[in-house]
Amino acid sequence: MTANVHPSATLGAGTTFGEHCVIGPNVSLGQGCRVGHGVVIHEGTRVGDHVRIDDHATLGKLPMKAANSATTKDQELAALEVGELCIVGTGVVLYRGATIEGKVLMADLSTVRENVRIGRGTIVGRGVTVENFCTVGRFCKLESESYLCAYSTLEDRVFIAPGVVTSNDNFVGRTQERFKHFKGVTVRRGGRIGAGSVTLPGITVGEDALVAAGSVVTRDVPARKIVVGSPARVWRDVPAEQLLEQQGWVDS
Amino acid sequence: MTANVHPSATLGAGTTFGEHCVIGPNVSLGQGCRVGHGVVIHEGTRVGDHVRIDDHATLGKLPMKAANSATTKDQELAALEVGELCIVGTGVVLYRGATIEGKVLMADLSTVRENVRIGRGTIVGRGVTVENFCTVGRFCKLESESYLCAYSTLEDRVFIAPGVVTSNDNFVGRTQERFKHFKGVTVRRGGRIGAGSVTLPGITVGEDALVAAGSVVTRDVPARKIVVGSPARVWRDVPAEQLLEQQGWVDS
Amino acid sequence: MTANVHPSATLGAGTTFGEHCVIGPNVSLGQGCRVGHGVVIHEGTRVGDHVRIDDHATLGKLPMKAANSATTKDQELAALEVGELCIVGTGVVLYRGATIEGKVLMADLSTVRENVRIGRGTIVGRGVTVENFCTVGRFCKLESESYLCAYSTLEDRVFIAPGVVTSNDNFVGRTQERFKHFKGVTVRRGGRIGAGSVTLPGITVGEDALVAAGSVVTRDVPARKIVVGSPARVWRDVPAEQLLEQQGWVDS
Repeated sequence: MTANVHPSATLGAGTTFGEHCVIGPNVSLGQGCRVGHGVVIHEGTRVGDHVRIDDHATLGKLPMKAANSATTKDQELAALEVGELCIVGTGVVLYRGATIEGKVLMADLSTVRENVRIGRGTIVGRGVTVENFCTVGRFCKLESESYLCAYSTLEDRVFIAPGVVTSNDNFVGRTQERFKHFKGVTVRRGGRIGAGSVTLPGITVGEDALVAAGSVVTRDVPARKIVVGSPARVWRDVPAEQLLEQQGWVDS
Repeated sequence: MTANVHPSATLGAGTTFGEHCVIGPNVSLGQGCRVGHGVVIHEGTRVGDHVRIDDHATLGKLPMKAANSATTKDQELAALEVGELCIVGTGVVLYRGATIEGKVLMADLSTVRENVRIGRGTIVGRGVTVENFCTVGRFCKLESESYLCAYSTLEDRVFIAPGVVTSNDNFVGRTQERFKHFKGVTVRRGGRIGAGSVTLPGITVGEDALVAAGSVVTRDVPARKIVVGSPARVWRDVPAEQLLEQQGWVDS
Repeated sequence: MTANVHPSATLGAGTTFGEHCVIGPNVSLGQGCRVGHGVVIHEGTRVGDHVRIDDHATLGKLPMKAANSATTKDQELAALEVGELCIVGTGVVLYRGATIEGKVLMADLSTVRENVRIGRGTIVGRGVTVENFCTVGRFCKLESESYLCAYSTLEDRVFIAPGVVTSNDNFVGRTQERFKHFKGVTVRRGGRIGAGSVTLPGITVGEDALVAAGSVVTRDVPARKIVVGSPARVWRDVPAEQLLEQQGWVDS
């Protein structure tokens, strides 16, 4: 066993490691975790029971700042927490300052940045980026290759389809004024955004509303309505059988 | 040499490894393979002759299931097979249950999931995802960052441009009914989809047809026609000099 | 310390390595570099002073060619150069034949291919691909998951928003004729392209012009104009307060 475990790390019963891992100071892993090959877990990270971590994942990464920055906020970030029964895919990168609740699946090559909370039972798809200062609710699905920009909020049971792109800067990188207005997407409980859609900065998608695939969303979407097109317009009501309350889903 | 090779693995003549590799039980590699650094090859994977595998690639990964799942299908998946003369890029993830025929190039950070077959001579571009239950023909090109959703079929000589997004669920994650209808894109022989286009669930792109860049495809595309726009409409015939039969290509 | 450093490599004072690194022949690293875990630096790569390189990054990778290719241009590529004060994120892949000037940030899982130059102070976002034969100016931002196709040119202070897709082949993979015409996007000084937009082959975005989010750009964009839609049309002038000359930025 070639894992390099710092003496201050604490490991629960039955937790196993593959080869060439690095487990840093004051890391704790719960019971029954299965850690793959080449996994790196940085200082202070706390992992719950029965978590699967696949090859080449990196947990607890410190944010990158311009090398010539005069200040650093590294010390202010709390340690990364990963809840029980999570699955962390191959090549995933999780930052210090993120909190991942239990039973979350983070698929291969996804990234969760600092100052983010991911709610219980949510699926973060392959290659997904959750930028800093986001809140993601419980039992959401962020499908493969979707992109959640900084300062976004997803409530519970939100569905983001593959390849969705969100944005947060109406000033597109110019003016000092923009720093006051950064705002990503807000999706209310049960809201859904279809494949390959683009949302402009500050958009709110209402409760149980649906953005059809391939749309460009330039204004807020009313609750329980479907919008479609570029720019997206209201098309019709979400069919009753698709409403969240009709699914019989129980949170657990 | 720090490669960790299981004693039950079989290695062909002239096959070389970089540092920090892990080669699992019953893996077989053919002759003349060049394996980079930090490569992980899981149990039972079979690799043909003269395959190049770059740093940090992972071969034969087991699918991830919710940790609290009552059932698992892991045992049902056949071992990953990678044919002769393939190239596997840096950080690539190939799943158990996939079959990659010979002379396939899988560029950096691409992923091929379980229950997929990739035909001979196909190029899977940088960052591309091929989800489960897909069939990809021979001599296709899936360009960088394109996304092939589950239950898709590409016949031979199909071209998928960069950033294309496909989808397979008209119910967008709701109703039990949807499980009967999941259907991705079907692209007939020589069909092409332009950069950044989005296809709705169940779309068929006809033989040698072309979807222009930036389109949203909401209905089937007739053979040898070009469609364009959002939603995409028929624009004109594919120019004769672009038809597959005019290229003089020989399959080999 | 388990780093595997070739005896011909030269390391500046104060440069440190994590575990399981591989530093190839004739690599040089400057002073005060911090290299993470599992980093691979291939033969001849030159890294300046005070560069941060995060876990699982690969520097100096040789391009991949079809395994049965009769020719190779590997020998013609100059060694990768990474300038002082750069930051190289987790899982980044940088090719031999690229030149990265100083103070560039390459975020996690980004790729820069051969025959590319990236100008000083530019930010290459998370998951970004810069394909071969591109030139990127100084102080540009290529935001997360944007895609810069081969044969593209970005002048200084260009802004590419998340999820932008560019393209370079009007013949979409057919005809011999196409090889004479490959041409990506050209963005003049201060030009900006909004989130999720798609540019057709050969497009020029004029000086300080702006493509609104979600657009499909089918013709050149005049300087200091905003275009929007699919296909994109001129909408109005860029607001004066957003012009580059109004930002008070000093190159350094």
